[in-house]
Amino acid sequence: MSITIDDIRAAAARIGGIAHRTPVMTSRTFNANTGVEAFFKCENLQRGGAFKIRGASNAVLALKPARVVAYSSGNHAQAVAIAARETGIPATIVMPNDAPKSKVEATRGYGAEVVIYDRLRENRVAIGERIAKEQNAAIIPPYDHPLTMAGQGTAALELLEEIAGLDALAVCVGGGGLISGCATAAKALNPNIRVFGVEPEDGNDTWQSLRAGHQVEIPPPATIADGLRAQSPGKLTFPVVQKLVEDVVLVSDDEIKAAMKFALLRMKLVIEPSGAVAMAAVMHAKLPKDVRRVGIIVSGGNVDYEVLAAL
Amino acid sequence: MSITIDDIRAAAARIGGIAHRTPVMTSRTFNANTGVEAFFKCENLQRGGAFKIRGASNAVLALKPARVVAYSSGNHAQAVAIAARETGIPATIVMPNDAPKSKVEATRGYGAEVVIYDRLRENRVAIGERIAKEQNAAIIPPYDHPLTMAGQGTAALELLEEIAGLDALAVCVGGGGLISGCATAAKALNPNIRVFGVEPEDGNDTWQSLRAGHQVEIPPPATIADGLRAQSPGKLTFPVVQKLVEDVVLVSDDEIKAAMKFALLRMKLVIEPSGAVAMAAVMHAKLPKDVRRVGIIVSGGNVDYEVLAAL
Repeated sequence: MSITIDDIRAAAARIGGIAHRTPVMTSRTFNANTGVEAFFKCENLQRGGAFKIRGASNAVLALKPARVVAYSSGNHAQAVAIAARETGIPATIVMPNDAPKSKVEATRGYGAEVVIYDRLRENRVAIGERIAKEQNAAIIPPYDHPLTMAGQGTAALELLEEIAGLDALAVCVGGGGLISGCATAAKALNPNIRVFGVEPEDGNDTWQSLRAGHQVEIPPPATIADGLRAQSPGKLTFPVVQKLVEDVVLVSDDEIKAAMKFALLRMKLVIEPSGAVAMAAVMHAKLPKDVRRVGIIVSGGNVDYEVLAAL
Repeated sequence: MSITIDDIRAAAARIGGIAHRTPVMTSRTFNANTGVEAFFKCENLQRGGAFKIRGASNAVLALKPARVVAYSSGNHAQAVAIAARETGIPATIVMPNDAPKSKVEATRGYGAEVVIYDRLRENRVAIGERIAKEQNAAIIPPYDHPLTMAGQGTAALELLEEIAGLDALAVCVGGGGLISGCATAAKALNPNIRVFGVEPEDGNDTWQSLRAGHQVEIPPPATIADGLRAQSPGKLTFPVVQKLVEDVVLVSDDEIKAAMKFALLRMKLVIEPSGAVAMAAVMHAKLPKDVRRVGIIVSGGNVDYEVLAAL
């Protein structure tokens, strides 16, 4: 069930009408401060405000279901809602009661029905499966599905096509869909590239799992990075991470906030906490010192203005 | 002394090593809300955080002075500081005591000496001229100079080269350097394009001047758009505005803030108040109803975080 570069190229061809090709930004000040040459793949400027539209639209376009259900803390929710509307099918989205208001509102704004659950007491997968059965709908998984992983990998495909000679790639890790897709694309285009995952300290399920050699489940994380609160890596994504990712490094919430603030004031970009963890890792020298030219996936920009104001 | 498209093309060739070619963004939500198709030329992502580097670097590269002096509320200050550093010459910048702290700090950060004056009681031109005489330095004017105007016009040149079929262009108006350059470029590439200036209600010197048929001087404006507090249009820029600009429209500080907030939350872009006035005009239907496909110059993104937090 592992994906290949061909799956990612097929996804790229499929999603072109729905997902944007996002710009790659640079910052002289960031480079001067860190001593590395960084290239930011700006998925915060992606449609729906995050990379998730890549996987969601790939799955919806390939599966062609009559209706869809998804469970998500936010960005995947919006992505499935957009993909469903673009293809003219109804969508139901299961979202936690502590999801950012902006994400809940945006999901409803894209025409989806939203079902709220209690993240600390209920199981979103069970709720999603019940609704799917009742409605005879297809579930679009947020990360643990080959079509989702392949779609999300198109972000790295675009970045490596545009920027030559990267020696490393830094990617945030939630359930592992983005990094497994991106690592597959990056290693296919450049077998020598080093791929690093980045997790928040309090959401270090993949960091722990890599060290344990198997999927570890952690308690619900409390990190500011609301998109990276997965409690364990996926069944399909984790073997890819084990095979292709050199290491996962950890950043604190304060390091994430510092990266968000730099992006806001110096790069003029709004990055959500989850979207800033890879940048935070480079900014705070968490990667090996011999990394010189690094691609950073800025995974999303959907942040409540209360969070921005608090910076 | 009027500039031509040849001057703008020469500027484009000259400044390529210093200024960025900025991306053009779109927003489906903005288009759905307004009923127009809008293309945002993102000079907030420009080097130094604003379009000013285009004019400043064009002037410095063409004049090749031994040292430079400039007076500016902020963005031109940073631009001249960068252009001077890039060409290896010393710069002195005269800035008002109420300029945003971020702009003063950034200007010093680029290696320039900063001289502060009282905007309500002192004359920055006189101070700049005295320093220029003492130091035998060239003054790089913020707008009223053919090289500045031509350099700033390269923003519209790039936009029209990239986006075909625009029927209108909306550009903020301070001293008129950006709009005179952009109007010259736009009309040369497409004689049918309609060019609209946008001013804050409290900084309506060009709006008044167009109606009076001559340069009108207003008291120091108090608008949030700190880059558009010019008290009168320039001697060189105003005739170009009279000839090529269909009208100037006005936006309130609240309309500017609403545009900034939309950019921040929906487009994930930090836009400073002055940079948001053209967007605010389209958002609040200030342009004629038959405008369908409009280019919007987002002139800058240098805003203090206190202002952002207050949104």
